Amino acid sequence: MNQKPIVYIVGAGPGDPDMLTVKALRLIQSAEVVIIDRLVSAEIQALVNQDASIIYVGKVPGMHCVPQDEINEILVNQARSGRQVVRLKGGDPYVFGRGSEEAEYLVRNNVAFEIVPGISAASGCTKAAGIPLTHRDLATGVQFVTGHRLAGKDLDHNWQNLADPNTTLVIYMGLSNIGTITENLIKAGLPASTPAAAIENGSTKDIRTCFTTLDNLHQRMEQESFKNPTLFVIGRVVNLAAILNAEETQPENTVEFG
Amino acid sequence: MNQKPIVYIVGAGPGDPDMLTVKALRLIQSAEVVIIDRLVSAEIQALVNQDASIIYVGKVPGMHCVPQDEINEILVNQARSGRQVVRLKGGDPYVFGRGSEEAEYLVRNNVAFEIVPGISAASGCTKAAGIPLTHRDLATGVQFVTGHRLAGKDLDHNWQNLADPNTTLVIYMGLSNIGTITENLIKAGLPASTPAAAIENGSTKDIRTCFTTLDNLHQRMEQESFKNPTLFVIGRVVNLAAILNAEETQPENTVEFG
Repeated sequence: MNQKPIVYIVGAGPGDPDMLTVKALRLIQSAEVVIIDRLVSAEIQALVNQDASIIYVGKVPGMHCVPQDEINEILVNQARSGRQVVRLKGGDPYVFGRGSEEAEYLVRNNVAFEIVPGISAASGCTKAAGIPLTHRDLATGVQFVTGHRLAGKDLDHNWQNLADPNTTLVIYMGLSNIGTITENLIKAGLPASTPAAAIENGSTKDIRTCFTTLDNLHQRMEQESFKNPTLFVIGRVVNLAAILNAEETQPENTVEFG
Repeated sequence: MNQKPIVYIVGAGPGDPDMLTVKALRLIQSAEVVIIDRLVSAEIQALVNQDASIIYVGKVPGMHCVPQDEINEILVNQARSGRQVVRLKGGDPYVFGRGSEEAEYLVRNNVAFEIVPGISAASGCTKAAGIPLTHRDLATGVQFVTGHRLAGKDLDHNWQNLADPNTTLVIYMGLSNIGTITENLIKAGLPASTPAAAIENGSTKDIRTCFTTLDNLHQRMEQESFKNPTLFVIGRVVNLAAILNAEETQPENTVEFG
């Protein structure tokens, strides 16, 4: 037991337990302490080792339950206690998950870490909505940006760079700023008619989607009272959902084999 | 057996079997026919149901073994044969995987499909190299672009949009064009000193990395004879690898629990 303490920083993916990686599942089933974010679904929490201590540090936008400093301290202290520690995060720890900040803090405190990548919301949620992120004729690339900034700070994106009709734009945590975001994109030259989608609770059975255009997106969110977590996808690939939406293409009598 | 035929378009992730999703593993273990790309690792192929027929349609850049039209036909015909069909692709089918094109073809031919997302190379390979894709102080977003175009076609990116020092740029399939890519980025205003990394065979034990700057990247690739598959990451987050590189932070005596 001369091992250096270690924290596994594990991506839980977008919510569906089927989208956990093999390694993530193995780790949560054998962990002794699991430190959990709000974005980890109940179905995934149910898979955690029944004997593990669970520490909730869930962040709700605009209301940080446990400050990041304190989370960092919890990780270090739990690892030093000699127990098997998993830090479980929604999505992918290295995509807007602050995984790198936690990893940095661990290293500086002489605790080892390992990142276990997860399916990011951009992949998990758009799949459920029938929207590919790239398509040879419609998008030569895809951009992920955050629509959320720390309290009191403005969104400081380079809007010109985001307003590219040839790429797909995915916005994480942007619901409360969607009015500002769509205005800025249109001002920067992205056509008001660009297809846009909102995906609430993607990859869970409570999924709700809205398909519209860039200029109507903000109004539709207010009319339909969309709630967090909501992911936005803006770009020509959104139109493919009319063809590729999984619910339409798969009749109910299609069951998974195996 | 009145089911509509279906093809599961499954992302195998970047190569490490531990990064398969639970659903991907279940599907390849029960499939009767598996249609496989070159980028699916041998370790993952070894997990495929031993009784399944395997059809290789591997694409090597610059040498397409089986043309896409033919792959599409194979998928439709295999599904109609009534067998349980998995189309297994490296990475994520909806990120430069041509998954959407295959799905579209299936739908138009009255075959159902389901996308099973995988860990994209951008997550899997950068994790191995110790590079987070975003970081609160260093990158407000991340862009994935393809560095490969069809034979005879020029790369037609909006270089101005890609040359953003506040975002991370990940380039897939860009090895043969890396000279053109770095030249264009510098011409568009991205500082020549921007940190840059190349990751060859990310997420396999044969991983090889190169850490340098934008202006030296092309030369280093030639000097060190990097080969496909190589992923490029350009941006300030690359510098975090000096702190977060997993091999350095984890002593050899740290073993996974469970």
